[in-house]
Amino acid sequence: MVQNLAIGKIAILLASLTEDELKQIKLPLEKFSYCQGRVGSMNMQKVISAVETAAKRNALINEGYYRETHSLYHAIMEGINGVTRGQAAIGEMSRTVGLRFAVVRGKPYDHPEEGEWIAVAFYGTIGAPVKGSEHETVGLGINHI
Amino acid sequence: MVQNLAIGKIAILLASLTEDELKQIKLPLEKFSYCQGRVGSMNMQKVISAVETAAKRNALINEGYYRETHSLYHAIMEGINGVTRGQAAIGEMSRTVGLRFAVVRGKPYDHPEEGEWIAVAFYGTIGAPVKGSEHETVGLGINHI
Amino acid sequence: MVQNLAIGKIAILLASLTEDELKQIKLPLEKFSYCQGRVGSMNMQKVISAVETAAKRNALINEGYYRETHSLYHAIMEGINGVTRGQAAIGEMSRTVGLRFAVVRGKPYDHPEEGEWIAVAFYGTIGAPVKGSEHETVGLGINHI
Amino acid sequence: MVQNLAIGKIAILLASLTEDELKQIKLPLEKFSYCQGRVGSMNMQKVISAVETAAKRNALINEGYYRETHSLYHAIMEGINGVTRGQAAIGEMSRTVGLRFAVVRGKPYDHPEEGEWIAVAFYGTIGAPVKGSEHETVGLGINHI
Amino acid sequence: MVQNLAIGKIAILLASLTEDELKQIKLPLEKFSYCQGRVGSMNMQKVISAVETAAKRNALINEGYYRETHSLYHAIMEGINGVTRGQAAIGEMSRTVGLRFAVVRGKPYDHPEEGEWIAVAFYGTIGAPVKGSEHETVGLGINHI
Amino acid sequence: MVQNLAIGKIAILLASLTEDELKQIKLPLEKFSYCQGRVGSMNMQKVISAVETAAKRNALINEGYYRETHSLYHAIMEGINGVTRGQAAIGEMSRTVGLRFAVVRGKPYDHPEEGEWIAVAFYGTIGAPVKGSEHETVGLGINHI
Repeated sequence: MVQNLAIGKIAILLASLTEDELKQIKLPLEKFSYCQGRVGSMNMQKVISAVETAAKRNALINEGYYRETHSLYHAIMEGINGVTRGQAAIGEMSRTVGLRFAVVRGKPYDHPEEGEWIAVAFYGTIGAPVKGSEHETVGLGINHI
Repeated sequence: MVQNLAIGKIAILLASLTEDELKQIKLPLEKFSYCQGRVGSMNMQKVISAVETAAKRNALINEGYYRETHSLYHAIMEGINGVTRGQAAIGEMSRTVGLRFAVVRGKPYDHPEEGEWIAVAFYGTIGAPVKGSEHETVGLGINHI
Repeated sequence: MVQNLAIGKIAILLASLTEDELKQIKLPLEKFSYCQGRVGSMNMQKVISAVETAAKRNALINEGYYRETHSLYHAIMEGINGVTRGQAAIGEMSRTVGLRFAVVRGKPYDHPEEGEWIAVAFYGTIGAPVKGSEHETVGLGINHI
Repeated sequence: MVQNLAIGKIAILLASLTEDELKQIKLPLEKFSYCQGRVGSMNMQKVISAVETAAKRNALINEGYYRETHSLYHAIMEGINGVTRGQAAIGEMSRTVGLRFAVVRGKPYDHPEEGEWIAVAFYGTIGAPVKGSEHETVGLGINHI
Repeated sequence: MVQNLAIGKIAILLASLTEDELKQIKLPLEKFSYCQGRVGSMNMQKVISAVETAAKRNALINEGYYRETHSLYHAIMEGINGVTRGQAAIGEMSRTVGLRFAVVRGKPYDHPEEGEWIAVAFYGTIGAPVKGSEHETVGLGINHI
Repeated sequence: MVQNLAIGKIAILLASLTEDELKQIKLPLEKFSYCQGRVGSMNMQKVISAVETAAKRNALINEGYYRETHSLYHAIMEGINGVTRGQAAIGEMSRTVGLRFAVVRGKPYDHPEEGEWIAVAFYGTIGAPVKGSEHETVGLGINHI
């Protein structure tokens, strides 16, 4: 594999590990930009919006350029596909999600011309809107930016 | 969350962390059964088969009972949906995957009647059948067993 | 086939036959638990809810355990996939459904260790929200419980 | 409902009931054309082909006209969606199906201008290519012709 | 190809070309019925409704017969699949569309028994509900009527 | 719309118009790079490969960089989704396609920082592997590069 920085794996760990667990594993966090966040909803639009807002507020994408929001949007949608396993209209399907997410931007490939990529990871629960009626779920989307 | 053992997260870590990294994080591995494996293919049937074979060889499921293979199969398919983000016919789509996987079986919920659940996690790469033309991918499926 | 009680076929007949027709066919209804119901909606959430409520009220699942609601939910979703043929967000797609449904729980396999399974069948119409602009539709989902 | 002949229900019964059971229920079979058949395969192309061949051999469609094969094809695909619940590439997904099918053609609506419609129903099993590792499945597709 | 009138291509051109551009290309518009329209929405139901209303108002389908609205509906849905590339619940996915559409009805095949077909084409933009954050999109559905 | 060069529309016209028709419409072809090609197959892998080969041979993408092949691949897949309307495994579904395609690369947005985008358009037929049993189909995918 030509990648030397696994931005997808780093995003997954940032989304799923607790602060204490993150201290135990040495991650090369100084080599890229990232942010973390949380969102819970029966409405996928709110999940998308929470990730977009966090990425913009942390300057992970330049919201002035559509190409960057386009890249982020498709990475989010790929991550959501993993979370919902093909049923993205979660509210209509009577599901609710409680998610932590991470967005990581950087250069995962050795060759400098490969440029920057973005990874969006989700970890949390999906289930019925009833306490305890839920199980874990994970999603990861990656795109060039 | 009623879960006290996050079998999905543990499966994701077993699939994505290196042996060295796994030593750094303390996981409650003594509380459940698990196995790890690797598979690379353009044929999703081989990926399914690799996970099923590993789970049976490690006695994670009792292959004599259809209800256990049925539970495992749907957990695998949910994990593959995350890996392929909806395009499971990877060969037809000219994609190849190189994956590490983990299967974890145990009791993630406090209440004993919730019984056993199974988690199947994948981590690796998906891309064109050309060296370096690939990026990371992750998938997780969870089912009651 | 190892099955000696075709719970899926029984669920389909309970959902699609009239009371008179059901009297004509001898079904081994004493060997399992079942319930029947009706629901009409443009909102898939209401369809899911109607089946879940009927199954709980008739003690087909124990709503105290997530593993049972999890099993039922996936059986419902598989049945809905047949009803909508892949477009589960029926309201957004300007469709309405009028459905009769049946939930059947029992032991369809000879081997006692195969345990209990659940079948959810739908029969009715799908179409535009205009009287007469509709045709028949059927769906069946089956899961171990 | 404006329908007075439920061709979908009749197709489902022709596909799922045994000869003995069919004798018990009075169906208005004299009012339309129909055929029955069987197919088992890991290859969805063979399932499609079996239904098309049976429909042509029994003169249910006029194979000289594309509009009739087009109508039948989409009805078959809708039925297959119910059978596979969204994973039509069954071989790639390591599934095999054993199906009985029925094709019914006739005029289900009161108004003569509604013309002829076609229903394709499947009933049988889907599962791993291992004896006994399978459960029931049903699918129904309906189209104007 | 047995077709001598490419109704899909004509629909695409009617949806995507400006009035000036349409004057430059000679289209056999006298050989079939057609209409054009515009719709912008985050709600797919409004897109479906706009096309259905335009088709009825221009007498492209006879709204008294379900078989004609059924045929049109499936052609619209196929066109929408191209527009959204599989994510038809655009509002839930935080997308908005601005579309021009055309519906064309006629006899595209040489053989008179092939009868009438209908084509629905969309051309426009899909994107975030933010000015400029959008790119082009196209969809085409075709059905016998 | 901020776009002043509609690369999607240009790609659709390059894929669907004959040489004669293309002469009638004035297209700003000098402002971007493009290529055209043809492919017929029951195997989607061959369609993908035909577009990738044409794009590389005409230097529309730099095949040395994965980010460019990644961008092209997703644009192809979006276009194929329109062509197949969700059933990309065409061979398994007993369908064959005969397609003309165009790939267009350029700067469709006024703002120079929006950079280059790529459009992949398909126009042709999809149908049964029987002469004449086919109708038109169109697909368009667009991505930043």
